[in-house]
Amino acid sequence: MSAITNTLQNKTAQLSSELTQPFTGSKKIFVQGSREDLSVGMREVNCSSTASSFGEEENPPITIYDTSGPYSDSDVTVDLLQGLSRLRLNWIFDRNDTQELDGPSSQYGNARQSNPETAHLRFSHYHLPRRAKPGNIVTQMHYARQGMITPEMEYIAIREDMRLQEHRRDPEFQKLLIQHPGNSFGANIPIEITPEFVRSEVASGRAIIPNNINHPESEPMIIGRNFLVKINTNLGNSAVTSSIEEEVEKMVWAVRWGSDTVMDLSTGKHIHETREWIIRNSPVPIGTVPIYQALEKVNGKAEDLTWEIFKDTLIEQAEQGVDYFTIHAGVRLAYVPMTAQRLTGIVSRGGSIMAKWCLAHHQESFLYTHFKDICEIMQAYDVAFSLGDGLRPGSITDANDAAQFAELETLGELTKIAWQHDVQVMIEGPGHIPLQMVKENIEKELEDCFEAPFYTLGPLVTDIAPGYDHITSAIGAANIGWYGTAMLCYVTPKEHLGLPNKQDVRDGVITYKIAAHAADLAKGHPGAQIRDNALSKARFEFRWEDQFNLSLDPEHARALHDETLPQDSAKVAHFCSMCGPHFCSMKITQDVREYAAKQGIEKIPVAIEKGLQEKAQEFKNAGAEIYQKI
Amino acid sequence: MSAITNTLQNKTAQLSSELTQPFTGSKKIFVQGSREDLSVGMREVNCSSTASSFGEEENPPITIYDTSGPYSDSDVTVDLLQGLSRLRLNWIFDRNDTQELDGPSSQYGNARQSNPETAHLRFSHYHLPRRAKPGNIVTQMHYARQGMITPEMEYIAIREDMRLQEHRRDPEFQKLLIQHPGNSFGANIPIEITPEFVRSEVASGRAIIPNNINHPESEPMIIGRNFLVKINTNLGNSAVTSSIEEEVEKMVWAVRWGSDTVMDLSTGKHIHETREWIIRNSPVPIGTVPIYQALEKVNGKAEDLTWEIFKDTLIEQAEQGVDYFTIHAGVRLAYVPMTAQRLTGIVSRGGSIMAKWCLAHHQESFLYTHFKDICEIMQAYDVAFSLGDGLRPGSITDANDAAQFAELETLGELTKIAWQHDVQVMIEGPGHIPLQMVKENIEKELEDCFEAPFYTLGPLVTDIAPGYDHITSAIGAANIGWYGTAMLCYVTPKEHLGLPNKQDVRDGVITYKIAAHAADLAKGHPGAQIRDNALSKARFEFRWEDQFNLSLDPEHARALHDETLPQDSAKVAHFCSMCGPHFCSMKITQDVREYAAKQGIEKIPVAIEKGLQEKAQEFKNAGAEIYQKI
Repeated sequence: MSAITNTLQNKTAQLSSELTQPFTGSKKIFVQGSREDLSVGMREVNCSSTASSFGEEENPPITIYDTSGPYSDSDVTVDLLQGLSRLRLNWIFDRNDTQELDGPSSQYGNARQSNPETAHLRFSHYHLPRRAKPGNIVTQMHYARQGMITPEMEYIAIREDMRLQEHRRDPEFQKLLIQHPGNSFGANIPIEITPEFVRSEVASGRAIIPNNINHPESEPMIIGRNFLVKINTNLGNSAVTSSIEEEVEKMVWAVRWGSDTVMDLSTGKHIHETREWIIRNSPVPIGTVPIYQALEKVNGKAEDLTWEIFKDTLIEQAEQGVDYFTIHAGVRLAYVPMTAQRLTGIVSRGGSIMAKWCLAHHQESFLYTHFKDICEIMQAYDVAFSLGDGLRPGSITDANDAAQFAELETLGELTKIAWQHDVQVMIEGPGHIPLQMVKENIEKELEDCFEAPFYTLGPLVTDIAPGYDHITSAIGAANIGWYGTAMLCYVTPKEHLGLPNKQDVRDGVITYKIAAHAADLAKGHPGAQIRDNALSKARFEFRWEDQFNLSLDPEHARALHDETLPQDSAKVAHFCSMCGPHFCSMKITQDVREYAAKQGIEKIPVAIEKGLQEKAQEFKNAGAEIYQKI
Repeated sequence: MSAITNTLQNKTAQLSSELTQPFTGSKKIFVQGSREDLSVGMREVNCSSTASSFGEEENPPITIYDTSGPYSDSDVTVDLLQGLSRLRLNWIFDRNDTQELDGPSSQYGNARQSNPETAHLRFSHYHLPRRAKPGNIVTQMHYARQGMITPEMEYIAIREDMRLQEHRRDPEFQKLLIQHPGNSFGANIPIEITPEFVRSEVASGRAIIPNNINHPESEPMIIGRNFLVKINTNLGNSAVTSSIEEEVEKMVWAVRWGSDTVMDLSTGKHIHETREWIIRNSPVPIGTVPIYQALEKVNGKAEDLTWEIFKDTLIEQAEQGVDYFTIHAGVRLAYVPMTAQRLTGIVSRGGSIMAKWCLAHHQESFLYTHFKDICEIMQAYDVAFSLGDGLRPGSITDANDAAQFAELETLGELTKIAWQHDVQVMIEGPGHIPLQMVKENIEKELEDCFEAPFYTLGPLVTDIAPGYDHITSAIGAANIGWYGTAMLCYVTPKEHLGLPNKQDVRDGVITYKIAAHAADLAKGHPGAQIRDNALSKARFEFRWEDQFNLSLDPEHARALHDETLPQDSAKVAHFCSMCGPHFCSMKITQDVREYAAKQGIEKIPVAIEKGLQEKAQEFKNAGAEIYQKI
């Protein structure tokens, strides 16, 4: 047995005991779709009843969107050496528009598959790759435009709905939507997510479903501003640090905590092998930046890159199952000098590689000149574009400058070409942007790129907090998500300082779940409020375990509570350490409420639909009267 | 020697070695004012020169607003048992409108001063309290309205300016202000902060200077939306946990990391003694919620509270030197029933105490009915009001409701009364507010409360992340700061879970420094950008130590960098662990820049003032031409 196999076998055992358990108080549930092999996993959080002192009532379970796949399913035995089961395989077969190949059709992929030197690192349960039959396009956008509702689309409709149907009929829920109208800045989120709505969004280009036919293990998900805001986790080794098993573990960790997609940005050794292990074990779409590996193939010399090497890399990765490619085709020769007077020049790795290539050759970027060729490759596997922002600002002062916006316009031009090939597209965005300039980014993106989904890195709203850039960037991310950005690329505390470890990944993912959820709430996404209310009700009623279980990170919440009050009894106590047993505002409020109830004060009609000013006055009058009667 | 004295002596030694050192690469500097005893401490960060490979140039030192007082001054020997030196004493003497008392004029304060049972806990270097001479008003607002520029105002003008005068004449800096115009939503931040501007802002009520004549140790600072956004740290013991020495240590920790004021919210044992230790050692204004201690005096029974007990508590605390009081005088009897149908009722401790009192007595709150009496006490010591939001929402779903806004209107009514007494006022705000409803809070506050400074707790923009509420709230805080909130009350990771320890205080303070600075940048505060640029330049030029030293938390940034590359050599390396030595976008950008320089590309005129669209087109044309010539 090879070293890596051995390590990963140990890792499997460890993950099974640590990370692949359901969250406390939660269970995996499945909502059945129209075909037998279409059932959508969700997390259900059980809630205990309200104590009699608080009015004694049942509290319904809460359904949570679940990215963890089999890793939180106690009925599944995880085996990293085998990879996950291939959920979507029959859906792909049924469409009868793809064929199995004899082996990798990329030169590099083929050579790598039989290289004895890397045999000990290789994922052994290899499946032969598939590709579109000649003349076929196998993208979800293609199907959508044909009017076809795929199982992937149906899966997504069920998934995004999160069993909201019950709530929708609940008058309390209706009231909520009226009380707290979102401001969605032109996004159009329906009250009910139907498969047809998913189809129409994909057909229009406003949303993408990244799911390569060679990654049938992934659970379909959608990225678009009329759906829940998604988050991405970056991981990957570098020449300085990390190993395959660490990266696989980070991926599992990321999806457990709620990451919707994962990008493998490896630039170190064994990029091909690392990626294979990650894809085979990932229940979420995997993205890459193929130019990183291409550069590796020419020993780091950007000027030695060629279209042929890049093309072979695209095919290699498409046949492994990468779901979306970051392609920096908007870094045009003429834009490069626009960065020379910047404070921090070009900070995107892909952007700087292409800039160097352009200058070295005095030529337009081959990514730009070969863009149609790239589309033809991607449509044969359903790899989506993530059009890279190679000229994004690397500091607050470089934000929203000519270079950045010139590239954005070009990305719009390329979006049109991709759509002509039925290839799905999202657009990458910055970066470092001060708060007052954030909105302009999404507004320009929507206009220049015809509403293709926006996918931003943060943005960080100040440069002065290395070590805390998950926070500086979550501020920008929550805002830009609210304004309409469809996916937020996480930033960890290690940004600008080092490669993230497992704990950094967790901090980054949870922080971005906060930003995404805050954006969903602000947009008025139907149902985003339900979990907040359930948690707040649990908090108010001192149902500590429910409060932990409903939170984004139950283990962490419980651990912090334990720091002050570690006793089990404190978890059922009707007070907390902030005020102690005799001095609790929530307890006093209960007294107020009981008192008010006795006095019949609760019977005052609350006219929710009226203006708040009016209500205030009305209550002032009503209140005064009541006390006169007593 | 008593136990507490002993502990605090040890603590002094420990603090001196750990926390009372200047930050690495920084020194304490002083800017002299118009009188000998008026010199304003600031932190100066030294920057190393740019290496020859990056163009070889000197980098000027950067001046940072400094809240740490003597704790980062290596020329001062800290002794917690002695307390800090009394910076403002002569300024107060010189005004000749106050008198020294024989002892505490509050019954409780007097009794406590001679109680043998608490002798072992008592701060021993006690100073006799001062009070306005009969018929005098000693508030900064009073002086300002008389047209008097006090030393406090001059101190603040120098402090807020942060030695910007040099930068202001720098054409690069001028360009910056044009390039990145802030959006200050009606705030009016001058290019130059003068003592007269400070005076006029205080006179108008748009800003406050909380500095009780009995806290002459504090360094004057200002809270107003036309100045830098400030942050507050809450600390204090509870019946369940904590000790005096821990709270003093947290205070020192908080000001070291940048807290502008500190609130002592103790509700446990020895509230009076804890407060004395904190005030005597605090270089920043101290706020309290006097009703907490008053409740303690009636054994936690809200209904037993009386105006007399409360009044005595106000005098007790005013004579100790508390700089601002949170007074929940807006919780009126008639508003209480408006909270009965809320999901989370009343979550403010002060608010719930007063609500209970009102209902128990069927009477209007004594805080409301005695508001003028309260003003008369506060004007004799210059204690500022922080009018409490006792009915703030405790969950997203309760945000911006009738109860909250009814109270806000009343706070406006009370603001007018306070101003009639020349008493300074700020207004407290929420709490839990979804992103799309944040702006309404500051808009209503400015209107209802006549532009009195707003002081908000977060707000948290979602309820689902206990354990991470410093982050959920920093998102709201950055936004509401940008919109015009003058001070942001921090939230720690322990919010809703337990009492913050030292590390939680640090996390909370740094997170709020991020929010406040992001708001300053977004408002276009002159000079807010300078530190960002210096840090980004250092980052781009691989001046690692400068990058750490310029950051909000140098120790943390350095520690994270060490995790991946602990060698000293890595701190001068021209690469980082994210990409490794051969694959660095910043390095490649340098190549691009050098290449561009060789080709004369840098000579392309950059028309900053033109629209970006225009520039893009212009550069496209210019770029194309250049390459034709070669």
